[in-house]
Amino acid sequence: MAGNTFGKIFTVSTFGESHGIALGGVVDGCPPGLELTEEDLQVDLDRRKPGTSRYTTARREDDEVQILSGVFEGKTTGTSIGLLIKNKDQRSQDYSNIANRFRPGHADYTYQQKYGLRDYRGGGRSSARETAIRVAAGGIAKKYLEQVHGIKIHGFLSQLGPVVIDTVDYSLINENPFFCPDASKLDALDEYMRELKKSGDSIGAKVSVVATNMPVGLGEPVFDRLDADIAGAMMGINAVKGVEVGDGFDVVTQKGSEHRDTLTPDGFTSNHSGGVLGGISTGQDLVVHMALKPTSSISVPGETIDTDGNAIEIVTKGRHDPCVGIRAVPIAEAMLALVLMDHCLRHRAQNEAVQCTTPMIPGSAK
Amino acid sequence: MAGNTFGKIFTVSTFGESHGIALGGVVDGCPPGLELTEEDLQVDLDRRKPGTSRYTTARREDDEVQILSGVFEGKTTGTSIGLLIKNKDQRSQDYSNIANRFRPGHADYTYQQKYGLRDYRGGGRSSARETAIRVAAGGIAKKYLEQVHGIKIHGFLSQLGPVVIDTVDYSLINENPFFCPDASKLDALDEYMRELKKSGDSIGAKVSVVATNMPVGLGEPVFDRLDADIAGAMMGINAVKGVEVGDGFDVVTQKGSEHRDTLTPDGFTSNHSGGVLGGISTGQDLVVHMALKPTSSISVPGETIDTDGNAIEIVTKGRHDPCVGIRAVPIAEAMLALVLMDHCLRHRAQNEAVQCTTPMIPGSAK
Amino acid sequence: MAGNTFGKIFTVSTFGESHGIALGGVVDGCPPGLELTEEDLQVDLDRRKPGTSRYTTARREDDEVQILSGVFEGKTTGTSIGLLIKNKDQRSQDYSNIANRFRPGHADYTYQQKYGLRDYRGGGRSSARETAIRVAAGGIAKKYLEQVHGIKIHGFLSQLGPVVIDTVDYSLINENPFFCPDASKLDALDEYMRELKKSGDSIGAKVSVVATNMPVGLGEPVFDRLDADIAGAMMGINAVKGVEVGDGFDVVTQKGSEHRDTLTPDGFTSNHSGGVLGGISTGQDLVVHMALKPTSSISVPGETIDTDGNAIEIVTKGRHDPCVGIRAVPIAEAMLALVLMDHCLRHRAQNEAVQCTTPMIPGSAK
Amino acid sequence: MAGNTFGKIFTVSTFGESHGIALGGVVDGCPPGLELTEEDLQVDLDRRKPGTSRYTTARREDDEVQILSGVFEGKTTGTSIGLLIKNKDQRSQDYSNIANRFRPGHADYTYQQKYGLRDYRGGGRSSARETAIRVAAGGIAKKYLEQVHGIKIHGFLSQLGPVVIDTVDYSLINENPFFCPDASKLDALDEYMRELKKSGDSIGAKVSVVATNMPVGLGEPVFDRLDADIAGAMMGINAVKGVEVGDGFDVVTQKGSEHRDTLTPDGFTSNHSGGVLGGISTGQDLVVHMALKPTSSISVPGETIDTDGNAIEIVTKGRHDPCVGIRAVPIAEAMLALVLMDHCLRHRAQNEAVQCTTPMIPGSAK
Repeated sequence: MAGNTFGKIFTVSTFGESHGIALGGVVDGCPPGLELTEEDLQVDLDRRKPGTSRYTTARREDDEVQILSGVFEGKTTGTSIGLLIKNKDQRSQDYSNIANRFRPGHADYTYQQKYGLRDYRGGGRSSARETAIRVAAGGIAKKYLEQVHGIKIHGFLSQLGPVVIDTVDYSLINENPFFCPDASKLDALDEYMRELKKSGDSIGAKVSVVATNMPVGLGEPVFDRLDADIAGAMMGINAVKGVEVGDGFDVVTQKGSEHRDTLTPDGFTSNHSGGVLGGISTGQDLVVHMALKPTSSISVPGETIDTDGNAIEIVTKGRHDPCVGIRAVPIAEAMLALVLMDHCLRHRAQNEAVQCTTPMIPGSAK
Repeated sequence: MAGNTFGKIFTVSTFGESHGIALGGVVDGCPPGLELTEEDLQVDLDRRKPGTSRYTTARREDDEVQILSGVFEGKTTGTSIGLLIKNKDQRSQDYSNIANRFRPGHADYTYQQKYGLRDYRGGGRSSARETAIRVAAGGIAKKYLEQVHGIKIHGFLSQLGPVVIDTVDYSLINENPFFCPDASKLDALDEYMRELKKSGDSIGAKVSVVATNMPVGLGEPVFDRLDADIAGAMMGINAVKGVEVGDGFDVVTQKGSEHRDTLTPDGFTSNHSGGVLGGISTGQDLVVHMALKPTSSISVPGETIDTDGNAIEIVTKGRHDPCVGIRAVPIAEAMLALVLMDHCLRHRAQNEAVQCTTPMIPGSAK
Repeated sequence: MAGNTFGKIFTVSTFGESHGIALGGVVDGCPPGLELTEEDLQVDLDRRKPGTSRYTTARREDDEVQILSGVFEGKTTGTSIGLLIKNKDQRSQDYSNIANRFRPGHADYTYQQKYGLRDYRGGGRSSARETAIRVAAGGIAKKYLEQVHGIKIHGFLSQLGPVVIDTVDYSLINENPFFCPDASKLDALDEYMRELKKSGDSIGAKVSVVATNMPVGLGEPVFDRLDADIAGAMMGINAVKGVEVGDGFDVVTQKGSEHRDTLTPDGFTSNHSGGVLGGISTGQDLVVHMALKPTSSISVPGETIDTDGNAIEIVTKGRHDPCVGIRAVPIAEAMLALVLMDHCLRHRAQNEAVQCTTPMIPGSAK
Repeated sequence: MAGNTFGKIFTVSTFGESHGIALGGVVDGCPPGLELTEEDLQVDLDRRKPGTSRYTTARREDDEVQILSGVFEGKTTGTSIGLLIKNKDQRSQDYSNIANRFRPGHADYTYQQKYGLRDYRGGGRSSARETAIRVAAGGIAKKYLEQVHGIKIHGFLSQLGPVVIDTVDYSLINENPFFCPDASKLDALDEYMRELKKSGDSIGAKVSVVATNMPVGLGEPVFDRLDADIAGAMMGINAVKGVEVGDGFDVVTQKGSEHRDTLTPDGFTSNHSGGVLGGISTGQDLVVHMALKPTSSISVPGETIDTDGNAIEIVTKGRHDPCVGIRAVPIAEAMLALVLMDHCLRHRAQNEAVQCTTPMIPGSAK
């Protein structure tokens, strides 16, 4: 049972290799009557696109999405939505040297072992290129969530190597190439990345996503809790190695009297939980963090083996992001949107009166 | 669409409230011919059971599991396996005071808002009591994984508040009430917990699970990656707020040249990845960490609201674990076993020759 | 991937063998707030129960159902509902002679070949005994459908061997042991069955199920059409070999001008479609027919092979229904209820305004 | 939860409207290493294509399928396969008159009521045009089934109105425009269809599909029985109103002594069951029949209502098949292939030794 479908009620099934003919997908379960155009989806695709700044890879992917079905006279019809992004820039020669070797830190070895063969061009299906379709599908969810429930999703870089952000101003996120919400860190980021590029190495990052104006009631215990599904979605993004909700790993040293968020008639007075209790949204801001590893495609030489098992040296050529974490911001937003959309529909399915829009107390504390 | 089923091919569907008549479940998809007895499952249920030491709650749950179907003459038949654990100790009076109030840090408020009503006795379905059935089902998976693939799963406490373990000796885990693999920390743990109990407060913890003798090839990209499914499973355990695979959040400050694990003809020379690349197991040890929040059921007074929205004071009486993280160890093991079992069958479904048992290189580095 | 779960949003997962300890199941996705007692479910279990008349088997199954969870203070809570029916009458000796032989027309051979071993006692999992849990779960769906949508489900015998019913009076169905809606056929049925019992043989039957007061809009094209899901549900009942919706196989010789149901401002003027167009309910009566084969457990001697492949003679002893079709009536009702319930929730999930309760035209023609 | 995905392990998710930009789909779960080209899939698309004879519609759909991913160097890679068929002939003007009226016998009314809006051009998503992608996906399954298991699938017309076939010669099926396996009926069919066209009316049909060289062991009781899944798949084809396995509705008047197929050391001596016992394949030929209604798009005038609820007269113009049953033959084959493929993988997932290839007795009787 292959795993190319995401979601249970609002589902996204995707296909496509890095250097194949096209990427595409089927979005099923979108409610009818939602106004939707290709431009709606292109916004985030352009944010994800490489080549937008000198800090990301210079490849031109030109992710132009087409809606092939499911929209009629500008509105969704309730039938499945076909999405297509044609691949344009397919310089296969850049990757021909990896046909018979396993890049360390990449999925070359595991794909070869699992399937017995692999499309080695640019990493094939294991390339982060496939996330373009996730971003397109997430765009549909984002529009729905905002229009119907008023939910907004804000992704941002919260740490890049040693540079840690101190403040969060959502209005800054799209004003700089780092998706950084803290103006005071832009120079430090710029300088760090320039040095890094010179060294030919790469760096890890921490990315955060916050959903504001959340309804209370989303999440399906005991297994399909909202936080469980979010953790699965985020860990399923290329390069992610850790996921936190709310205080995350800080809770290890917290006491109960410190961690529990007090309820008052005016709302919660704190948000250690990150907006989820018992796997169900509280109406507070939903706060998620994730750790992204440094890309292994670097020009620093390394050792590995070839497909015959012989030890060889490897230097990854080609154009690669020195920090893949940056471009992960719109991807993380898209995945959170897909999870929330799925859970909105799941909640509605079982619960007559959609309590999720009228919380008993305001979801105050962020 | 409610969420009481876990897994896609090897599935576990559970039911049961903390103070209801019984907990139970259906395990579907178990291969035929596996020798299975109730004793096989009781071992881990006894490890999870409260009242086994003075550090956990004094409640007597007496989790005795019955296998109601799916096993004939000592072997699984390939049909669904019914599991049942009767509830014995149902002192509802301990909880009567929470019928009309929302305990802070608990799921009372979210269940009430989501469903419009809730079984408030002992937390009802939101109580960690339901995990007993997960542990029973996980026992089936554990037995299969070890017998068929030789996979072993080791869960342990790796941090409790300020006490951090330094060494891991699997043989010690079941020899102390903390599931602690480091003999040098037992005194510190004992002392810390005694002080904590006096204060009436609770503490968070970090729990780790490692699967050894892993096959290469488990995991179904792009969404149902092995690490994604593990993250979802772990975040779906009560009180978990963060999940890491391999180096986890440490990767944020790592460079690519440092993080990538080198492949040699004799195996990997390090295991920063935690045994997963591109969402597929590498054959290295699978390394997972999780953060568990301190329980909110403490005798330290707190503020909250009642079901009419009025501010009130709350003191949780009853018998509660000062560190729920400890008892989470067998639960985390069970969830990892369920994920691995599901992925073994999923891999087999699609891949004729089950490559997952014969890695090209040994999965050396732990 | 075993197949013991039915439904996609409102799901039923079952377990249990004919002569095991108990039958049981988990019903997940039931909306909260539905009043529910064990008595609600017992009604149909008693209708399905053997031994209620001289025309069905004399076994005493005594199907007493217990609700183990998911109901609190008389109402469903939105959490999963555990169901249990203990097996009481387990005269294994009646079946000991089939341990090493394959009864013709039964699943003995296929289970043995598929799983490599089988619980041969009374057919094990392949016995129609498992349908008791379907009936219990269907009872929940029936209650919901009637209370929330006003939908009523009527199952009846429409043919037994050569005896074909001419008229349908729902009020008669539960007044005779045949579930026959035509009073003029009761004598013929009685006589036919008495002769049949003497001969030691069995007979096939045709069973119909009609849902009245149907909403328009249920069904999820292009694959999960309402009629497709109904066909799957009905063919999944033991002994069913054919399923029809509306005019069924009569359409083969119909012309388009004859078959198409005319829409008028006052409703449809006929119901050849059986209440489904394009896989979506029209609001007309939903009309389903199915053919049930004669049981193969008869006292007429037959030939078969044993588990070593040798030819042997076989005479089925024990107590068996001469027409299993009769008892299939409440099972067929239950399965239709499960399908409709699932589709009500599925429709609601995707469609904001639940149009399915206010058809544009009345669903007049039956 | 929309229903545009078929299958559980081998899945097909489709999109596309009759007069949209393109039809497409994602096939997930195909084992790696299967040789696959677009030509493999085109064969059946050409059989399904309208305009191939004077008995089917004169529209030119030119169903040219593209494989967009999942195949590398001529072999499947185990990743998801993207399929695309561009729509070429989009004469929307033929259908503009149906924008504000509901064609009787069509899904216009139910789509409008379910979703609140609809793509009325050529029936939109409810058009049988979407089955082109099913046929393409089924082609992948067909190739796999034949190459790996030797299973062959034969679809044919077994009745058209009053013309009933007497003999089945698979070699004739593709030699005439009716997919008729009985040479002696070709003249009668030709004559009947010519008269029918003149009258402007349409006619129903019966289509059969037989899988030969079947393995024993396919099917997942108790719900996902092989016959249950086949019934769902067939009833989900446009215009199908009835499905039979084996003797189908004939069993209503059969006795047990007549129906049960005798097992001998040399195989079964008859095939009343149609190759399924207890929901699991027996190794005999798998025999399925289905009834297809006459199309409602006829030039015979009829009554209906418009979208404002007013009574109006309707005459369907445009180019339509007088017997849609004929073209359903390759569609039915494709759906059977998809079901069998899914069940092969499902069986393999749970059962170590794939017993399904070595039956204990030969599956002799057809």
